[in-house]
Amino acid sequence: MLRGLYPGRFQPFHLGHLNVVKWGLEKVDELIILVGSAQESHTLSNPFTAGERIEMIRNSLRDEGIDLSRIFIIPIPDILMNSVWAYHVSTYTPKFDVVFARNPLVVRIFKEAGYKVEVPPPFNREKYNSTYIRRLIILNENWSELVPKAVYDFIIKNKGDQRLREIVGTDK
Amino acid sequence: MLRGLYPGRFQPFHLGHLNVVKWGLEKVDELIILVGSAQESHTLSNPFTAGERIEMIRNSLRDEGIDLSRIFIIPIPDILMNSVWAYHVSTYTPKFDVVFARNPLVVRIFKEAGYKVEVPPPFNREKYNSTYIRRLIILNENWSELVPKAVYDFIIKNKGDQRLREIVGTDK
Amino acid sequence: MLRGLYPGRFQPFHLGHLNVVKWGLEKVDELIILVGSAQESHTLSNPFTAGERIEMIRNSLRDEGIDLSRIFIIPIPDILMNSVWAYHVSTYTPKFDVVFARNPLVVRIFKEAGYKVEVPPPFNREKYNSTYIRRLIILNENWSELVPKAVYDFIIKNKGDQRLREIVGTDK
Amino acid sequence: MLRGLYPGRFQPFHLGHLNVVKWGLEKVDELIILVGSAQESHTLSNPFTAGERIEMIRNSLRDEGIDLSRIFIIPIPDILMNSVWAYHVSTYTPKFDVVFARNPLVVRIFKEAGYKVEVPPPFNREKYNSTYIRRLIILNENWSELVPKAVYDFIIKNKGDQRLREIVGTDK
Amino acid sequence: MLRGLYPGRFQPFHLGHLNVVKWGLEKVDELIILVGSAQESHTLSNPFTAGERIEMIRNSLRDEGIDLSRIFIIPIPDILMNSVWAYHVSTYTPKFDVVFARNPLVVRIFKEAGYKVEVPPPFNREKYNSTYIRRLIILNENWSELVPKAVYDFIIKNKGDQRLREIVGTDK
Amino acid sequence: MLRGLYPGRFQPFHLGHLNVVKWGLEKVDELIILVGSAQESHTLSNPFTAGERIEMIRNSLRDEGIDLSRIFIIPIPDILMNSVWAYHVSTYTPKFDVVFARNPLVVRIFKEAGYKVEVPPPFNREKYNSTYIRRLIILNENWSELVPKAVYDFIIKNKGDQRLREIVGTDK
Repeated sequence: MLRGLYPGRFQPFHLGHLNVVKWGLEKVDELIILVGSAQESHTLSNPFTAGERIEMIRNSLRDEGIDLSRIFIIPIPDILMNSVWAYHVSTYTPKFDVVFARNPLVVRIFKEAGYKVEVPPPFNREKYNSTYIRRLIILNENWSELVPKAVYDFIIKNKGDQRLREIVGTDK
Repeated sequence: MLRGLYPGRFQPFHLGHLNVVKWGLEKVDELIILVGSAQESHTLSNPFTAGERIEMIRNSLRDEGIDLSRIFIIPIPDILMNSVWAYHVSTYTPKFDVVFARNPLVVRIFKEAGYKVEVPPPFNREKYNSTYIRRLIILNENWSELVPKAVYDFIIKNKGDQRLREIVGTDK
Repeated sequence: MLRGLYPGRFQPFHLGHLNVVKWGLEKVDELIILVGSAQESHTLSNPFTAGERIEMIRNSLRDEGIDLSRIFIIPIPDILMNSVWAYHVSTYTPKFDVVFARNPLVVRIFKEAGYKVEVPPPFNREKYNSTYIRRLIILNENWSELVPKAVYDFIIKNKGDQRLREIVGTDK
Repeated sequence: MLRGLYPGRFQPFHLGHLNVVKWGLEKVDELIILVGSAQESHTLSNPFTAGERIEMIRNSLRDEGIDLSRIFIIPIPDILMNSVWAYHVSTYTPKFDVVFARNPLVVRIFKEAGYKVEVPPPFNREKYNSTYIRRLIILNENWSELVPKAVYDFIIKNKGDQRLREIVGTDK
Repeated sequence: MLRGLYPGRFQPFHLGHLNVVKWGLEKVDELIILVGSAQESHTLSNPFTAGERIEMIRNSLRDEGIDLSRIFIIPIPDILMNSVWAYHVSTYTPKFDVVFARNPLVVRIFKEAGYKVEVPPPFNREKYNSTYIRRLIILNENWSELVPKAVYDFIIKNKGDQRLREIVGTDK
Repeated sequence: MLRGLYPGRFQPFHLGHLNVVKWGLEKVDELIILVGSAQESHTLSNPFTAGERIEMIRNSLRDEGIDLSRIFIIPIPDILMNSVWAYHVSTYTPKFDVVFARNPLVVRIFKEAGYKVEVPPPFNREKYNSTYIRRLIILNENWSELVPKAVYDFIIKNKGDQRLREIVGTDK
């Protein structure tokens, strides 16, 4: 039985993320989707709470017909110490055999901790990019095709787009 | 669609907990099992990591034939402020309509935050009690019948019983 | 112009505390009442929030006809380091010339930090004692004469007595 | 009896802030002035300690003849979680009925928490602006007319202007 | 080149500790003395600051003629997560090959993290025991023979015995 | 007996730092080298762990023939409160008589806390500058002459240069 870890912030979960999930599920029996910076929300970089992100991810996977019994979705707050982060992660999750990550620092930290790391194939990263999608939301431009329908519906229904625009307006 | 929250530390998850899960699933469509004190492990009161607890709970539910697509298992670290705890929880979880809890302080905190709370029926709380089970483990007495088979197997396989006995021996 | 600091947790503010305030106001022009452990509430030792304690203290002083323009009531959260606590306090408060304290550790810490400390006269400390008063509240015995009327009224109106009894009942 | 909350960092308290206080006191019986980021000081954005800010605000209100028995001045440290900030505030303060705020994020957070929010009228925000005033202090240009006299006197007497210029010079 | 780690709180450093240092220096080329709970002081269990403990240890080793170029004395604050503690330690210290520890939990945590652990020989642990020595100090009984002379001199000169007795007297 | 404090982050320790150490040792009997931001590592500004920095500093001093019994090398984590930082430092270190610092904020904070501060003589600060050296490492340009040989050897042997380049590549 093989288990993989897929860390991210998923602000929001988009089709590039979904693609990694599908790709990963071909390589391992179970996949842990790690929702990082769980303590953050209501900021420009992290508009959605961990709970909202978990719900959006789960709805998206269900819509895709992915077997949820093969998936763990686990939120984790940041700690201030990069060098112990991989170990911190390992206490919040079931044991895993491989990490799916592209971010060079994340790759390095898990490798230093002795984990096997695989870099997922690229998937049009200019477009399927959370920063870019948040910008489109703020500018009220079209972003619906970049995310799973379940993500779009959740954000619209919960007025997440309006929240993001209000945060941008902050003069704090 | 109704969603319930079931908070606990699950050190370890036992048949009383399993009973509450089944009882809860008759009342709501989806149940969030909240694994509290997620940052704790390797202590007498909290021997298991959040990841170990999540895995034990999940294995137990799967063995019971419970539909995992109706379940969220979400770890959450403690914060030091009781008065904001209910709100802290609400940022880590999807929205919920009712809380299943017996602990008077937990009941009070969620009620003060405006949540509906239901107290699960008692289920032989002298026996199905995590403190009692940890004591049996330490004393090497029989505890296998008090927990789901998946919990027993996990603890034995990962030498969790030995860890607990070593922690007791601590002279720190 | 002389300013004094009077630190405490005030869980709750009682007639012994009030007495110290009056005694202190004869010695200094302005008095800072420092409400410690501000982050705590809903526990057996710290049932009331900082905000509730501030309101109870203020109402008590007003009822006594004390000139509020001579008083600062300032909440401060704990820090984990005793040795810097006096300095931590000094960043939350206007400058002060003398500390009114009886607790030997508090006395020592402020003295080590170079402050002048005066010990208030005792005032029937068996009776006018927050731990004792909380116990009476829990046991539903008579405690109304041990606190200012404003404190009693506030606790009854906000069901603080009921909160305390529920906290005691906790099986967490 | 109506109570309002006026959150800010007040680095330093200026005539625009004073104007909001006066405007607020026409709408409510009691006003809580919440001094945010209380743990910060000696930085470019937050040069003054919470205690210094409290003293400057209080002196300004007294000079204006404002009845201090209608005012609470309460420091509060930051927490890292925006989504629970409104609840965090509510544990440090007496209960309040309305929030006076202009910052869109603050407005949003209190609205999400169920509070009524009113936006104070603008008051020449280019001039009466703490960032702008700190810049003038650093450049040694004229800023005395932008703040209450009590604030100016306090800063000069305590060499706060010199502190700010030294912080700017930091090469840390 | 072999390096060993010797963790402890050293409240205070006594002849049993000194014995472990000497024993360890026969086994490794360099020894890291890790001064734990560095953030603590002025409590019954942790009366001395990290800096005071470092100075006492260093003076003791110098008096013994131990080559200080073979020694690191490194303070480290606690973190709340036992399961990542060994990794936390490894970021504060140069790399080490073996851990000298007796405490079963410490032994377990370092073993789980993949370190070699050796248990030092016992050395009259009823007598050479920090808890016991602190009690003797409080009771003003004879403790001078249980600690290196440098420790005794430091505590007396800095009135550490008086501090300890005042802490005991605390009624906080 | 005079003792000096020399605070820095030493990311990495370079010849300018070494020069200050030598200059300081002419003025005091013992020198405390305080390794700040000890909790940080694996970032662009703080690539090395506290333990790595301690080892590099120690090796450099030994190579220079500096008497290590006159030196303390003490790591300290950040606290969020500038105004209590000097006191925080004093709990992690033996008592000191003078601070050697150039950073204006550090100078100010120690002066406000009552310490004597001396500014070390400049030593070609354009070249002997940690930020500049990290940039050279990243660009793979020549930096070996700017640091003690022991620092260069340590970084190369432990692939610290590669770590730094990977961190720069981060897209987190």
